[in-house]
Amino acid sequence: MPHTYRLVFDCPDQVGIITRVGKIITKNGGWISQATHHSDEESNRFFSRFEIKADSLPFGVKELESKLEAISEELNMNLRVVDSEIPKRVVMMASKGSHCLTDLLDRWNSGDLKCDIACVISNHEDMRGLSEHYGIPYHYVPIEKDNKQKGFDEVERLVGEANPDCVVLARYMQIIPQALCEQYVNRLINIHHSFLPSFIGGKPYHQASRRGVKLIGATSHYVTEQLDEGPIIEQDVVRVNHSDSTEDLVRLGKDVEKTVLARGVRAHLEDRILVYGNKTVVFK
Amino acid sequence: MPHTYRLVFDCPDQVGIITRVGKIITKNGGWISQATHHSDEESNRFFSRFEIKADSLPFGVKELESKLEAISEELNMNLRVVDSEIPKRVVMMASKGSHCLTDLLDRWNSGDLKCDIACVISNHEDMRGLSEHYGIPYHYVPIEKDNKQKGFDEVERLVGEANPDCVVLARYMQIIPQALCEQYVNRLINIHHSFLPSFIGGKPYHQASRRGVKLIGATSHYVTEQLDEGPIIEQDVVRVNHSDSTEDLVRLGKDVEKTVLARGVRAHLEDRILVYGNKTVVFK
Amino acid sequence: MPHTYRLVFDCPDQVGIITRVGKIITKNGGWISQATHHSDEESNRFFSRFEIKADSLPFGVKELESKLEAISEELNMNLRVVDSEIPKRVVMMASKGSHCLTDLLDRWNSGDLKCDIACVISNHEDMRGLSEHYGIPYHYVPIEKDNKQKGFDEVERLVGEANPDCVVLARYMQIIPQALCEQYVNRLINIHHSFLPSFIGGKPYHQASRRGVKLIGATSHYVTEQLDEGPIIEQDVVRVNHSDSTEDLVRLGKDVEKTVLARGVRAHLEDRILVYGNKTVVFK
Amino acid sequence: MPHTYRLVFDCPDQVGIITRVGKIITKNGGWISQATHHSDEESNRFFSRFEIKADSLPFGVKELESKLEAISEELNMNLRVVDSEIPKRVVMMASKGSHCLTDLLDRWNSGDLKCDIACVISNHEDMRGLSEHYGIPYHYVPIEKDNKQKGFDEVERLVGEANPDCVVLARYMQIIPQALCEQYVNRLINIHHSFLPSFIGGKPYHQASRRGVKLIGATSHYVTEQLDEGPIIEQDVVRVNHSDSTEDLVRLGKDVEKTVLARGVRAHLEDRILVYGNKTVVFK
Repeated sequence: MPHTYRLVFDCPDQVGIITRVGKIITKNGGWISQATHHSDEESNRFFSRFEIKADSLPFGVKELESKLEAISEELNMNLRVVDSEIPKRVVMMASKGSHCLTDLLDRWNSGDLKCDIACVISNHEDMRGLSEHYGIPYHYVPIEKDNKQKGFDEVERLVGEANPDCVVLARYMQIIPQALCEQYVNRLINIHHSFLPSFIGGKPYHQASRRGVKLIGATSHYVTEQLDEGPIIEQDVVRVNHSDSTEDLVRLGKDVEKTVLARGVRAHLEDRILVYGNKTVVFK
Repeated sequence: MPHTYRLVFDCPDQVGIITRVGKIITKNGGWISQATHHSDEESNRFFSRFEIKADSLPFGVKELESKLEAISEELNMNLRVVDSEIPKRVVMMASKGSHCLTDLLDRWNSGDLKCDIACVISNHEDMRGLSEHYGIPYHYVPIEKDNKQKGFDEVERLVGEANPDCVVLARYMQIIPQALCEQYVNRLINIHHSFLPSFIGGKPYHQASRRGVKLIGATSHYVTEQLDEGPIIEQDVVRVNHSDSTEDLVRLGKDVEKTVLARGVRAHLEDRILVYGNKTVVFK
Repeated sequence: MPHTYRLVFDCPDQVGIITRVGKIITKNGGWISQATHHSDEESNRFFSRFEIKADSLPFGVKELESKLEAISEELNMNLRVVDSEIPKRVVMMASKGSHCLTDLLDRWNSGDLKCDIACVISNHEDMRGLSEHYGIPYHYVPIEKDNKQKGFDEVERLVGEANPDCVVLARYMQIIPQALCEQYVNRLINIHHSFLPSFIGGKPYHQASRRGVKLIGATSHYVTEQLDEGPIIEQDVVRVNHSDSTEDLVRLGKDVEKTVLARGVRAHLEDRILVYGNKTVVFK
Repeated sequence: MPHTYRLVFDCPDQVGIITRVGKIITKNGGWISQATHHSDEESNRFFSRFEIKADSLPFGVKELESKLEAISEELNMNLRVVDSEIPKRVVMMASKGSHCLTDLLDRWNSGDLKCDIACVISNHEDMRGLSEHYGIPYHYVPIEKDNKQKGFDEVERLVGEANPDCVVLARYMQIIPQALCEQYVNRLINIHHSFLPSFIGGKPYHQASRRGVKLIGATSHYVTEQLDEGPIIEQDVVRVNHSDSTEDLVRLGKDVEKTVLARGVRAHLEDRILVYGNKTVVFK
């Protein structure tokens, strides 16, 4: 991947946004290698993502950001300016199921998922061995049925220490408390094992089996206080039929879960996602 | 397609079913060209479909059926014995949307959908020209807001006259009265323009757009009194993204709707579907 | 679809292209509603597509084009400026197979494919009835085995008369002579019934059946003198298995063929395709 | 998964096969829980797979096999009778790429891939740590450019010692010598990183990028002496576009490779694959 600065923003739509932003980039010699824009008719909102070759600018990402400050304020932008070479910090959370975490760690270890993994936090010991094989600190934080808050206080402390750009719930089988959701808005990515909004809540494959659907799916989404209702990032499905038991659905679903989660995490790490209301713009 | 007799049944599961049925076929020289079976663990029910080369038997489909009568009764089977060369009778129902009906009529006209189309019934005049181009009788039966039953009485009369094996709701935009549903149980095929059970009811593409899903789908199912709750026959999806307006979803969804409906109708016409409870076994 | 002017170009890549083009648009009050850009690293070429709200500009598409003339020349652009409300002219060519033409005509008739269909040209009479049902002139031009050129002279005359933006080979089963290919470079769209580059040439489904593939596909592409070697616009596949005969592959393939052709034609009509070398950029 | 005996065979087609086999099963109290059959019209060959509940028979798999000996000989069957509870022995071979091996080991460790993994053999040291994490013996066998046979002699010795039912080439980047291919006919499974027969041989993603395809794929197949020409077990694809570099294709392709290989291996382990000529029957 070439070294670029990413300029990602949304703001109320009006005439001249691209041109004015482009002018600031070009005036400083910035070479735009990719750019995509989208205006949403309903909300009259403009979404934009530029990639600028880093070596075409005579300065770094901080100075680029400061040069965009005035227009950002004037146009009332949500603006991020990001250096593609500075890896984002990620915390992984998992329970007993290994498929999503194993998949993410292998992608990371192969260089296909550019980030620093601060640690793995889990309410079980199962994934310690694998995490430590990859040299990643592992924190076992049990969540007790009768005192969940105690465990989540420790989770909050550990996550706070890691100061992550992104927390990935890689089949973490506990409901995240509201306080944590609020603290990491649009940074907490979950994988739900159904094609939302079908089969919200527990045991979605059992629900799918009972309904007799012919495809099952998975959904990666940002977590909000409302269970399985947050902004959807990515979805996919796999075909099943009458001969597949619930146990088969669980197994077949894993392939979709891990792919859909990995695509969601990757899009986040590459600053391709903009959230508005309860929906996402995901620029390819 | 070779000329075959299809033997399709389900019954409580026990030892020896295939062998006993096979014996009756073989004793008479019947050459089984295809056979698939499925036992459902949960319901302890057995589902089976045989295709027997017609010219390997010294008699016709009626006599084959009578030879299976005793075992059918003993094992408490739901049994159908069908001659693949006798086309099923189909009634098509449509409204203004042309894509599903056009698609089905072309498949039929090309010989890819083997059946006799008795007539098209519609609450609009829009599809008369095309239907008559293919030489199919067209009945315009308006459904008045204030007296829907009047229209449906006429629909019921026309369908009754046609005496169909199957009624296809090719985007017929009226809710079918309970009486009609009951009369044509497991013979009334609808296409719903969402990936059920997501987005039940009206304007599913508007619902999908609001929820920000990344795939939209369609579902063909047998109609029951409970709207969009009947046994699912077939489903498929297509990828969408933030740049697709609701209008785009409607357009993109049409491709899935027509394919999913055609596959469902074809499976019905080839006696590949067995219904149990609210689910289907669809043998490939 | 909102009324827009589309500005589509490619040129050698350098600093400032978006900004300079944007400036010309903005100076005149032009409101950019969509824009996508792509730089190809290997060829160092820049590809760009803007949509500008027509009512935001005080003039028409011709004047917009003239305002871009200087920069287009300076940057050595291949530039098109297009009014979305002026329908493109299309000639359809077909043989006996009905599925692609029926599908395209229904999309056009439903308003999902915005264009003027000048005529259908066919080497058979089979599709006359349907074409005339839709009010489209039908030209039967037989291609005689021993004197193909005679037929193609007539085809060339008819196409020339229609003066189309696009000629669609909707399963036209004759090889297009080189002269015609050259005359309509990047305007002649074909559907090949395989997942190219697999199974080039005749009877691809027979080839697929012999090789025992588990998916079959279709490819829409611009026609060049080299059979099935032109720039690929769109592809898709469908799953098959051992129980599918070659006849089944032919039938199952039709669904992919018509969808893949329709998507290709639509992308062309919306000016989403840019060709470079033997490849395409297709902006969503 | 319930404990069953699998009875898998193919033979020349004729009247009465299912019935005669069924009779032997039923006479001994065997309860058939699943059965699928297929006759291939072209080759006039019959393919069949039964699953019989183990606890319905008063004896074990060896005795069942002996009871089928006579009919197997008479009908000239290729017959396997397999106990689902006896895990197959598997040898994994890998090079530097981790995605396929990591994926397979996680499935195995999660209980989703029922087999005994005898060892991993690799021409690199890269995957030793992970393999040993899972407690699997790891053999580093370098393949020297100038004396490949020396390495392959050692490979042959190690594989021979393991006496496997199946050797999985999990992105093993060396061409298998003919002698080894012949020794493990229909037991040597490879993953090729293209949608065969497109892009046979080296660097298929580079080939795909040059051709400008819109989907890339992967193929799992049994290895024969002819490179990438063996019987195809499973294939799948993923969508790409102009913005994907060759490096992106490599990354995107990995997801398809690992899924397609895992499905192929699973089908082999469950005795769902029958090979005839250069094609496979894969019973779902």
